[in-house]
Amino acid sequence: MAREVGDYPVVRRGDDFDPRDIRYIFAWKPKPDAFDGLTNLKAILSLGAGVDALLKHPNLPGDVPIVRFVDDDLSQKMSDYVAAHVTMHHRRYSRFHADQQARRWTQYYPPAASTSTVGIMGMGVLGQDAARRLLPLGFTLRSWSRTPKSIPGVEGFTGADEFDAFLSGTDILVNLLPLTPGTEGILNADTFAKLRRTLDGGPVIINAARGGHQREADIVAALTDGTLGAASLDVFEVEPLPVDSPLWGIENCYITPHIAAISNEETGVIYFANVLKDHEAGKPLINVVDRARGY
Amino acid sequence: MAREVGDYPVVRRGDDFDPRDIRYIFAWKPKPDAFDGLTNLKAILSLGAGVDALLKHPNLPGDVPIVRFVDDDLSQKMSDYVAAHVTMHHRRYSRFHADQQARRWTQYYPPAASTSTVGIMGMGVLGQDAARRLLPLGFTLRSWSRTPKSIPGVEGFTGADEFDAFLSGTDILVNLLPLTPGTEGILNADTFAKLRRTLDGGPVIINAARGGHQREADIVAALTDGTLGAASLDVFEVEPLPVDSPLWGIENCYITPHIAAISNEETGVIYFANVLKDHEAGKPLINVVDRARGY
Repeated sequence: MAREVGDYPVVRRGDDFDPRDIRYIFAWKPKPDAFDGLTNLKAILSLGAGVDALLKHPNLPGDVPIVRFVDDDLSQKMSDYVAAHVTMHHRRYSRFHADQQARRWTQYYPPAASTSTVGIMGMGVLGQDAARRLLPLGFTLRSWSRTPKSIPGVEGFTGADEFDAFLSGTDILVNLLPLTPGTEGILNADTFAKLRRTLDGGPVIINAARGGHQREADIVAALTDGTLGAASLDVFEVEPLPVDSPLWGIENCYITPHIAAISNEETGVIYFANVLKDHEAGKPLINVVDRARGY
Repeated sequence: MAREVGDYPVVRRGDDFDPRDIRYIFAWKPKPDAFDGLTNLKAILSLGAGVDALLKHPNLPGDVPIVRFVDDDLSQKMSDYVAAHVTMHHRRYSRFHADQQARRWTQYYPPAASTSTVGIMGMGVLGQDAARRLLPLGFTLRSWSRTPKSIPGVEGFTGADEFDAFLSGTDILVNLLPLTPGTEGILNADTFAKLRRTLDGGPVIINAARGGHQREADIVAALTDGTLGAASLDVFEVEPLPVDSPLWGIENCYITPHIAAISNEETGVIYFANVLKDHEAGKPLINVVDRARGY
């Protein structure tokens, strides 16, 4: 960081400095005392793409703008995860895996990608990137977001009123929402029951956002009773996922250990060094979190 | 077929007709006597995309042009298969599956798609379609073909002389070649040993073309000794794959029963009806097989 910001002085927690001199803080999973004494902060620079945990920090200064990390590398990796799991479920991976284990040659022909509708929840930077990459693969796309979004080739649904309509045409549900009080637990039994049932094997959910979005007891029940055909989960209510979670043992549940996409420290340093330099030069901050909105 | 060609008379094998009246034959896996007595054939219309089996037919008329089926629907489905398996291997599916079975939370972060080079063998209609769909996903692409092909964003390699150079930069090898005497058994131990070894877990092969392209004993050995990290095979030397094949039981071998893409009969009928009508109207035949080349 020090190298990127030129002669701007950089200190670490534990160094000898007067907290009143600190103008910017570079934060990722900050400790409870991280903001103590920082009475002259101009901005909080958040290395995570999601700020849900940061916003719950008990000593977060109330009046300091928070700058979110927006990173092409992170978007690419998130889309890599989404594309891999969407295509795998569209091609009925679970079915062929079961056939292979039984040494069974059963010629089932998956239909073309266009017959599967992928519904993306959350149309921010990550949702738009995923849509942009899934479209050329031939999938039918729709999105659901808080505010209207007009993305070519993607049928947009907005707000609580259009949520059921969005779900009723979705075969593969991809969650890329920010975690807010309004989206917590959105992946629940009610939601699953409203998904379209045209995909052979049943509808699929893919959660690459936050564990707080999902009700794991509902997912276990839905995968067991056939309400869902499969689930890809990268995040969990408790992480690491406890060894006694029933999710581990469900054949059609695809677990990854919160690795879909991680912030790249190198790009983060460059990004925030520019944010800082621009702000010091009098330019406005970019990608500022709206605390009322929660992201 | 009869409906699509208007008042052009259509008969089936077994109907009562004079074989000398037959001008076009619509063939898929023709029986040994399929061409008997058809002395006035103007064209053989092949419903399969690959004509390797047809060209081996013992009684194939030597001087009649063969028209290959070129089908957008088939290309889309083949690319669906390719994209699903490329992305799955890039995202290290085998590794996370093993972790899940062991209820192990090990945070390995797959690098961005651009770090994986996908090498496509065969740059005909299918190879080009696959490239067009993989590019927006962010993969680095290269191709190998008999004649030079210039596809934006794809580094092209041509002929036997450039085969080793092609392999030496390929992490994920996708086979979409036609089966000819020159490509038979191309997926063998020599080829595997020349692949690049930068993909964590080892290089991967994906065969969606013909079983005759692969040496299955070499694949078993390479998957066992780590020369290959994984294989996705849709085709086999003998189909259905015999129950005692060791391939079934190899964890990192992903078997599908020759279902990557099937010719769509409906589109086939429309396509060949147009070929026939155009030819009767004096236009030249399209997509004619070069028998010397083998496709």
